[in-house]
Amino acid sequence: MGTLRQDAEYIIHQTLQSVMPYEAVHRALKQRQLSNFVTVIAVGKAAWTMAKAASELLQGRIKKGVVLTKYRHSQGEIEGFQIIEGSHPVLDENCIKGTEVILEAVEGLTKEDTVLFLLSGGGSALFEKPSGCLTLSDLKEINQQLLACGADIVEINTIRKHLSAVKGGRFAKLCAPAFVYTIALSDILGDRVDAIASGPTVADASTVQQAWDIVQKYDLKISPKMKKQLQEETPKHVENGAVVVTGSVSQLCNAAATVAQELGYTPFVLTTMLDCEAREAGRFMGAIARSRQKGEGMLSGKCALICGGETVVHLTGTGKGGRNQELALAAAPYLEGMDHVLLAAVGSDGTDGPTDAAGGMVDGNTMQKLKEKNISCEQVLADNNAYDALRQVDGLIMTGPTGTNVNDLYFLLMEENA
Amino acid sequence: MGTLRQDAEYIIHQTLQSVMPYEAVHRALKQRQLSNFVTVIAVGKAAWTMAKAASELLQGRIKKGVVLTKYRHSQGEIEGFQIIEGSHPVLDENCIKGTEVILEAVEGLTKEDTVLFLLSGGGSALFEKPSGCLTLSDLKEINQQLLACGADIVEINTIRKHLSAVKGGRFAKLCAPAFVYTIALSDILGDRVDAIASGPTVADASTVQQAWDIVQKYDLKISPKMKKQLQEETPKHVENGAVVVTGSVSQLCNAAATVAQELGYTPFVLTTMLDCEAREAGRFMGAIARSRQKGEGMLSGKCALICGGETVVHLTGTGKGGRNQELALAAAPYLEGMDHVLLAAVGSDGTDGPTDAAGGMVDGNTMQKLKEKNISCEQVLADNNAYDALRQVDGLIMTGPTGTNVNDLYFLLMEENA
Repeated sequence: MGTLRQDAEYIIHQTLQSVMPYEAVHRALKQRQLSNFVTVIAVGKAAWTMAKAASELLQGRIKKGVVLTKYRHSQGEIEGFQIIEGSHPVLDENCIKGTEVILEAVEGLTKEDTVLFLLSGGGSALFEKPSGCLTLSDLKEINQQLLACGADIVEINTIRKHLSAVKGGRFAKLCAPAFVYTIALSDILGDRVDAIASGPTVADASTVQQAWDIVQKYDLKISPKMKKQLQEETPKHVENGAVVVTGSVSQLCNAAATVAQELGYTPFVLTTMLDCEAREAGRFMGAIARSRQKGEGMLSGKCALICGGETVVHLTGTGKGGRNQELALAAAPYLEGMDHVLLAAVGSDGTDGPTDAAGGMVDGNTMQKLKEKNISCEQVLADNNAYDALRQVDGLIMTGPTGTNVNDLYFLLMEENA
Repeated sequence: MGTLRQDAEYIIHQTLQSVMPYEAVHRALKQRQLSNFVTVIAVGKAAWTMAKAASELLQGRIKKGVVLTKYRHSQGEIEGFQIIEGSHPVLDENCIKGTEVILEAVEGLTKEDTVLFLLSGGGSALFEKPSGCLTLSDLKEINQQLLACGADIVEINTIRKHLSAVKGGRFAKLCAPAFVYTIALSDILGDRVDAIASGPTVADASTVQQAWDIVQKYDLKISPKMKKQLQEETPKHVENGAVVVTGSVSQLCNAAATVAQELGYTPFVLTTMLDCEAREAGRFMGAIARSRQKGEGMLSGKCALICGGETVVHLTGTGKGGRNQELALAAAPYLEGMDHVLLAAVGSDGTDGPTDAAGGMVDGNTMQKLKEKNISCEQVLADNNAYDALRQVDGLIMTGPTGTNVNDLYFLLMEENA
């Protein structure tokens, strides 16, 4: 892919750097004076990096710390911290155990204590205790239904909150009378604070009624005991807490625009809230590129069309892939044979779906390469198998886990035709 | 909807006027000197208007004329013309009879004759004679499969051409030795001339192999006699013809941009080749509007975001609607509660799907109105029933049949927040 590919990789690298958690925690801690007895609880894919930042910035004032993050997302010991890893996006026993450790750490705190709650994407699955007499397997089962049916993340979290002993403001209640200061890296489009990692420390705006509507909308199968828990309302007021949201998909898009501009592209941020079906978003962006190549539409010159958001995938197959890989692959037929154009879709957390790739990248040669390997783009999408297809045409974006999660970045780079 | 709605209706009206067939035929006839013995064959949804233009412009030189158009698309007698109406998008016996009348009209022509072939959208269904021993019901059956499986119009026409005695260049061969001058109003994205109404007078670029690939891709059920016809190749050379393509979705978009600008909107034509799933295109455009309202992204001021194309619908229900109505309805939840924004999706032919509406229009109040009538947007889309839902909230665009077909126009009007 030559220069365009190098440009794309540079944009991805620089953009992700700019939304890294260390700077975010640093900024947020400057905004508020904490007590001298701080219990640090870090939950989410960026938990380790956020905790590391806090441990450096709050030297000597930390009573105790717990990190609960995704497998392979911690990067070593942090003094005074217990570090626990669990499974994401489908939670496992380690998530439940880690949550118990956290609940013990905040037990018996006084008004003199502060809980510094460092929250990032993935927290919704990782930080979990089933409410009432529900079990992990109850939650796993409903989570699988939610991920497969195409519910959006806000809907998924509405259900999770009502089935959880820690979500939807319930964790803050368990910390009382200590004050809870939450620093959240947002992965929710539009930054509604009660939705970030299902808002463990925030009064919950979602209601029993809404949860029930979602059950009916997607025809979810729920047991009688689950139905009972779904009828218990979450806290509508939290007095012992404050939340600051930092890092967001807007920052991600704006950073990409800035870096693209440095490289000589005229940037155009179209939306930061894309949440439609992944492959259709790829087709829409592909159509934009095709028109541009025919000299139609109003994009001209060397330009970068940038979108942010978090698309969804409705599973129809059993292959390996992720929403960003599907988006990129679906755009490939539109770009076929075109020079000077590239589309990239990348998850800011560095792990797209259950894969080790962050996303996908395609250009005008991708289809030719796929055809040479007898790979049908349509068939791959029907099987949700984008990973293998992109791997064979050098179309995977590999960043490794980034330690942050502020949704996804999608961009088209288009140069003048020679 | 007030002013924004008036603006939208003005844009739609003026834009459609600018792509009307009369001007198109007038321009094309100036480009070429025809003989004094002209047989005029007009086929498609715009056939009547195109024939009327020709009858006025070629006074005294027309030997014979035939118009074959969709039911309710002719507007009265034209001197010297036989006018036949048939069913579209699912063809019927009248289409077959009309085609026979046309074939009789071009029988026995000499080198001194010219056939003026006026082609517009819908011609693919209307102008048809089954090849070999196939019958109308064979074609109907495969057409239904093609419309339901989500094949795009190019794929549909590849199959149709290989099962037809008049498509894919075969009609031009039947006119020989007369010269055939084709004036085509394009409804094919990208204007590939062999695809417009399945190219009756154009050498066919699609092959027996491609037709077979489509059969397999969508798992189409075909009979042995159909399989036999699919193996007969279409003409790869047509010496006795010339084609001029006039009217196109690009003209449609550019006209909309011009009219929007007159009204004070800064226009931005994003693509003229949108062909993804209708509802997902609506969601993408809805996300653009939502970002814009939050002050994110780079659209600002009073602006009009314009797209053109022809989206597809994969049927899952049995309701009444069309692609433009689905696109608009799917955008409604994104616009909910927003002031100063409107989305319109309109088919340039004035008939969206099997309905009497041209498309749909939604704004920030649409969701509220739907909720008051207990209409669930999701459920309506699942049932493909957008027509009734939009009708109840004053969201249908009614133009009546326009007499032209150059794909669809989608636009967002956004004013400054007050």
